[in-house]
Amino acid sequence: FGAQPPAANDPMWGYFTAIAGQDGEIDAEELQRCLTQSGFTGSYSPFSMETCRIMIAMLDRDFTGKMGFSEFKELFTALNGWKQNFMMFDQDRSGTVEPHEMSQAITAMGYRVSPQALNAIIKRYNKGGRIFFDDYVACCVKLRALTENFRRRDTMHQGSVTFQYDDFILCTMAI
Amino acid sequence: FGAQPPAANDPMWGYFTAIAGQDGEIDAEELQRCLTQSGFTGSYSPFSMETCRIMIAMLDRDFTGKMGFSEFKELFTALNGWKQNFMMFDQDRSGTVEPHEMSQAITAMGYRVSPQALNAIIKRYNKGGRIFFDDYVACCVKLRALTENFRRRDTMHQGSVTFQYDDFILCTMAI
Ligand SMILES: [Ca+2]
Ligand SMILES: [Ca+2]
Ligand SMILES: [Ca+2]
Repeated sequence: FGAQPPAANDPMWGYFTAIAGQDGEIDAEELQRCLTQSGFTGSYSPFSMETCRIMIAMLDRDFTGKMGFSEFKELFTALNGWKQNFMMFDQDRSGTVEPHEMSQAITAMGYRVSPQALNAIIKRYNKGGRIFFDDYVACCVKLRALTENFRRRDTMHQGSVTFQYDDFILCTMAI
Repeated sequence: FGAQPPAANDPMWGYFTAIAGQDGEIDAEELQRCLTQSGFTGSYSPFSMETCRIMIAMLDRDFTGKMGFSEFKELFTALNGWKQNFMMFDQDRSGTVEPHEMSQAITAMGYRVSPQALNAIIKRYNKGGRIFFDDYVACCVKLRALTENFRRRDTMHQGSVTFQYDDFILCTMAI
């Protein structure tokens, strides 16, 4: 007897509560610690605080700056996918991929972006002409969040959205 | 005789060429080195590479990832303004300002953003409830660049812009 929380049977629940601490939610510092300690990034450099902050922002639809259990699981699913993609291109495990591989990856994920936009993205996320895992994930997080924000407003599926200034700032500054 | 470059009489020209090196333009690494060595951040922590990259992106309208002389001067003017604003609020020189001071600063700069958008911005840029100089500048850079991108498209000054998906990604992902 005594009602269990709905997630109690989920194998990740114990892990989540241990990371989340007293407030029951995960903030950027807790996320960075957990992703570093769990060895998620493997031989790659740990995620920067900056990337952890936008991981939270991507799923934080009520702007609390923290993540609940369902968001946490959603994030892990996304991260696993991006890691697999990255490792497929980084076959020598150097920790970086080439600009043209990044373009291929973005296109393979189903984003329809012009060569000009791809070029701008690569200019933004490369270091010395190569893209590191942390920046790759930051780029994927941002692209996913911005695309979701756009689609949620493109209710007629026309590929265009009319933004008021304040709404434009709200859905681009937080990411 | 021999034509001088138009900037040769400018006192900042020699400084610029020394930083820019052989290619005659400043990239993010060069900018970070120059802002650190010149002591621009004073007693505050040096700018992160992340912030330097968006400083370049803010002015990099042709997406080369580098800055010419006129952009360099434009950036310095903007940085000086933001530093003055920040120091006005950070009177005890702790290197941080409070969330409500950040809201005041954004409003004082002339941006018209709702309390909800201000809240989202502060959630994104605070660390432990306070805003550090580096994050403050990153926020100002982003807000300025996004606002300029928006205004350039709002040719009728109606406060609303219809974005195609690709253009939306182009003008938000690079920042
Ligand atoms: Ca917590
Ligand atoms: Ca590689
Ligand atoms: Ca250079």
